[in-house]
Amino acid sequence: MSHPFPYSLETVVDEVFLEAAAVDDGDVTTYIPELARVDPALIGLSVCDGSGAFVERGDSGHYFTLQSISKVLGYACVLEIFDDETIARHVGVEPTGEDFDSIIKLDRHKRPFNPMVNAGAIAVTDLLLTRFGGEAVEQTLAFFAQLLGRKDLVIDEAVYESEQRTGERNRAIAHLLKNFAILENSVEEVLALYFRHCAVQVTTGDLARLGMTLANGGCTPGGGDPVLCPETLRKLLSVTLTCGMYNYAGQWVYEVGFPAKSGVSGGMLGIVPGRYGIGVFSPRVDEKGSSPRGVCVQKRLSDRLNLHMFAPD
Amino acid sequence: MSHPFPYSLETVVDEVFLEAAAVDDGDVTTYIPELARVDPALIGLSVCDGSGAFVERGDSGHYFTLQSISKVLGYACVLEIFDDETIARHVGVEPTGEDFDSIIKLDRHKRPFNPMVNAGAIAVTDLLLTRFGGEAVEQTLAFFAQLLGRKDLVIDEAVYESEQRTGERNRAIAHLLKNFAILENSVEEVLALYFRHCAVQVTTGDLARLGMTLANGGCTPGGGDPVLCPETLRKLLSVTLTCGMYNYAGQWVYEVGFPAKSGVSGGMLGIVPGRYGIGVFSPRVDEKGSSPRGVCVQKRLSDRLNLHMFAPD
Amino acid sequence: MSHPFPYSLETVVDEVFLEAAAVDDGDVTTYIPELARVDPALIGLSVCDGSGAFVERGDSGHYFTLQSISKVLGYACVLEIFDDETIARHVGVEPTGEDFDSIIKLDRHKRPFNPMVNAGAIAVTDLLLTRFGGEAVEQTLAFFAQLLGRKDLVIDEAVYESEQRTGERNRAIAHLLKNFAILENSVEEVLALYFRHCAVQVTTGDLARLGMTLANGGCTPGGGDPVLCPETLRKLLSVTLTCGMYNYAGQWVYEVGFPAKSGVSGGMLGIVPGRYGIGVFSPRVDEKGSSPRGVCVQKRLSDRLNLHMFAPD
Amino acid sequence: MSHPFPYSLETVVDEVFLEAAAVDDGDVTTYIPELARVDPALIGLSVCDGSGAFVERGDSGHYFTLQSISKVLGYACVLEIFDDETIARHVGVEPTGEDFDSIIKLDRHKRPFNPMVNAGAIAVTDLLLTRFGGEAVEQTLAFFAQLLGRKDLVIDEAVYESEQRTGERNRAIAHLLKNFAILENSVEEVLALYFRHCAVQVTTGDLARLGMTLANGGCTPGGGDPVLCPETLRKLLSVTLTCGMYNYAGQWVYEVGFPAKSGVSGGMLGIVPGRYGIGVFSPRVDEKGSSPRGVCVQKRLSDRLNLHMFAPD
Repeated sequence: MSHPFPYSLETVVDEVFLEAAAVDDGDVTTYIPELARVDPALIGLSVCDGSGAFVERGDSGHYFTLQSISKVLGYACVLEIFDDETIARHVGVEPTGEDFDSIIKLDRHKRPFNPMVNAGAIAVTDLLLTRFGGEAVEQTLAFFAQLLGRKDLVIDEAVYESEQRTGERNRAIAHLLKNFAILENSVEEVLALYFRHCAVQVTTGDLARLGMTLANGGCTPGGGDPVLCPETLRKLLSVTLTCGMYNYAGQWVYEVGFPAKSGVSGGMLGIVPGRYGIGVFSPRVDEKGSSPRGVCVQKRLSDRLNLHMFAPD
Repeated sequence: MSHPFPYSLETVVDEVFLEAAAVDDGDVTTYIPELARVDPALIGLSVCDGSGAFVERGDSGHYFTLQSISKVLGYACVLEIFDDETIARHVGVEPTGEDFDSIIKLDRHKRPFNPMVNAGAIAVTDLLLTRFGGEAVEQTLAFFAQLLGRKDLVIDEAVYESEQRTGERNRAIAHLLKNFAILENSVEEVLALYFRHCAVQVTTGDLARLGMTLANGGCTPGGGDPVLCPETLRKLLSVTLTCGMYNYAGQWVYEVGFPAKSGVSGGMLGIVPGRYGIGVFSPRVDEKGSSPRGVCVQKRLSDRLNLHMFAPD
Repeated sequence: MSHPFPYSLETVVDEVFLEAAAVDDGDVTTYIPELARVDPALIGLSVCDGSGAFVERGDSGHYFTLQSISKVLGYACVLEIFDDETIARHVGVEPTGEDFDSIIKLDRHKRPFNPMVNAGAIAVTDLLLTRFGGEAVEQTLAFFAQLLGRKDLVIDEAVYESEQRTGERNRAIAHLLKNFAILENSVEEVLALYFRHCAVQVTTGDLARLGMTLANGGCTPGGGDPVLCPETLRKLLSVTLTCGMYNYAGQWVYEVGFPAKSGVSGGMLGIVPGRYGIGVFSPRVDEKGSSPRGVCVQKRLSDRLNLHMFAPD
Repeated sequence: MSHPFPYSLETVVDEVFLEAAAVDDGDVTTYIPELARVDPALIGLSVCDGSGAFVERGDSGHYFTLQSISKVLGYACVLEIFDDETIARHVGVEPTGEDFDSIIKLDRHKRPFNPMVNAGAIAVTDLLLTRFGGEAVEQTLAFFAQLLGRKDLVIDEAVYESEQRTGERNRAIAHLLKNFAILENSVEEVLALYFRHCAVQVTTGDLARLGMTLANGGCTPGGGDPVLCPETLRKLLSVTLTCGMYNYAGQWVYEVGFPAKSGVSGGMLGIVPGRYGIGVFSPRVDEKGSSPRGVCVQKRLSDRLNLHMFAPD
């Protein structure tokens, strides 16, 4: 069912990598001080196909923190554990039309719009804490590791501490959630887990492999066993598609046409159902919190490889 | 490429029709007085496949007005005529997270968020008027007729007059668009064309055929020639997917997983790429302006026929 | 009851006039094209006391249009004619915390917040039209003339036409009011009267005299008969105090401490209960639609003459 | 300068007290659990004149907590200590047009609109903490005591603990203030002081005496020395007038016409410049957080004693 094209994947990736490296927009995130210390020139790219083959370029071995990409993993975990009704009491599935850390909609509707904005991801983290209690860090990181295809995961403690110290907006959101009785656990416990998820270290290869697993019915590439049930996958890809790129989601579907998620550390995950998983990293991000180079990679791969969900065959 | 399932399409449509007919929610639209006069018990359903075969049940021959479903046709026409940059000056492609006739986002951003809310559809109509001038009614209805696979189209004059008399909110929106220099033509000229598009009469069979054409790379079912270019189709389906169901769009993708559009007259269009076009009609609508029976039909067909875009094969 | 101060009123006015003339901020209004044609260097100042004595400086004989200052006169007329309950169905008395032409609050609350924002003034104008019908222009201008102490009033037809042509935002607001069933008359009839009120020509002397009448229990200065009933006066001054300076009203009470109203033509009315009426004119206005020179005059007079309502004796 | 009226103050207070006691609206506050335990039938009323004479009725000896009335005292303290520019960096003086605990405006403007909403009072409390450090509780309570004319003040520890446990919305607001760099001290330290101010116990006699002091140029009734400078008083009364009654402030000035402040415990302070201080207490409050009986008292006293600032002499 793969799409025929006249160039090899290697050739396309080469070209796209060069194009993306020439993009000169955005700035390294500074609101988390530790993220401001990274080399802004870094750029890594990995593409994984269904056979588990990788095409990688640049700083694909460099470790960076998941940040908002962890929202996809946390939500996947919650979808595996809880029924729809329970989840719906804590978080919706609607795009907000607002910034990723918006408080306005939360205050009016008293429930986070979706798990891809901070309020929703904090609500999701609370569900995980309720389920796993004192084991939450271990259990959720083990689940993340399984999805990422790693033995274990390392948390960037400096980034974690940096977010703990400066995350006042997330604290405001969490206390508002507490006020609306969305959180069952204490704000500080929930945020500690949430910031840990954000600080998990990965490479673009990890993201590409994760993307391929999600693109592959939940089966790890190369013929692995499913690590997610089909229902989880359907819901997870739906919400990532409509909400993953925040208030850029409509434009994203219009131009790129497959689910993706970015993080303020500059990482970006692309999921092309039945085709590819894509991981990109470049630390400079735009005002919406996405890497312009990462956006460029996904758009150009979509164009060149005809990856848009509504592209003609 | 069709999906295997143990029941015939006829059997599934029978069951789904009975389920939908049992739904007892919503009320006939009253803000357009003429729409309040329809028989609330009506229910029609048509499904069209790629060969042009139809399965139809109930009041599939009853004529109703397109209302907001015309937004899909008007946007298709604009996508065929204008380049992206011109269109983007007049209307965006982002979901709003607000009601379909919201004024708040328009006032803050000075450009309609997308062509599926009233403000955006009015901006789209203005572009058509700019292009076609005095021929606008004839030209756009001819385009609509081609997409709907009809020789000609009839406008329900009573509904048109009713909207003209009562459309104060749309007038407010249009004057605000004029204030932001989005409209080039006079408010009353633009609204006259807009209300005419809304008042075009169709059957569920027409919608099903339209849906199949859009599901079929723009080719009319049964091996017809393409009536839309692939780029138009990609953009049209993308925006219909993310914005067509208004602030229910996220939930729609989550649960149903293919592009659809509803109108306050109770009509509903479903587009299942590569598979089916779906037309439903039942006059009672919910507070979001969609027919609960129409929603039921689309959801149940998605479930039973495995039509969700992220469903496992 | 006059306040003792070591300088004569003449001396203080001289100083304040020089200070104000040195203010070099703001721009001539351009959204009403005709207003853009005025000489930006003009500055006039008039102060009237309870005896009817005037101190005037600069271009106090220059005619300009009332613009938003007409909102005070229109509301006064409505307060004289209608009971509280009727008025309250059409317009409230709360400050908005938003810009003068905001649509957001109107859309949420379905009733204008107060008669000093455009939406509220349009609702007030509709009440006048309902009361006076075909005589509305003559009757309301006669009422305005009585308050201003003039035989008759002249409308600046060029400004009126200019607003008629360009008032798209006000049309949007009026249609929204119509949609909420606040207006009984047609949008265009209401706006024609509203724009005429805005285009009434006055001098700073007229404003100072009006201010003194309102400061003097509704009696024209120099021992004239009352032209407003005490209840009207209490309500009118209250709403002018809390809402007259839009979303600058809080700062205004804090710093200046008496009711005032500005217009985008650069005129400004000050009402110092028991003391003075103040009229200022200078065409350059700030982004809130007030003349910085007019603001300077009122502030400096308040400081020098101890006019703040909560100033120590 | 007192206003002549045909009835003695005692007679008017008798009548108003009976009218207010007959008001049967509102509910005891429940969001602070400890406040829910009070007897809802209580009603106390005290009026103090410039000579220090009191007229008191009902449960005027009952102790209740200041709650939001403490905002007036905290702001007075800040006005005495800091210059305008410093204060303006932390809090504005504009009415919000929103509820008292609104987050929306804060999030958009990044500075509290005024010191009478929770966000602004928390910012004011932070300034007090910055100034007094470890002495903040003692110093601010000493200042409060001086204004209230008491030797010392008692904090209702049960109410304080109750607010500490449940004040999640205030925590959200405080963390947002921290995020915008409005707070210099830790959120928990600031809130501890803020909640203590809210939990100070007073009687209606205390409030009446405070009101008379503020009505009397800052001099304690009966010929006492000034405890506030004139500038503080002017600013304090201005902001209390325009912002003290939240999004009911416009209606308040319209109907009652003198500065007042209510608290969710059911207490209410009225300040009639040059005339009276008024204290009322009745635990049932409306959805805006004011006691309907307290509102009734102030309105009826204003009517009967001609206390409106714009009333005719």
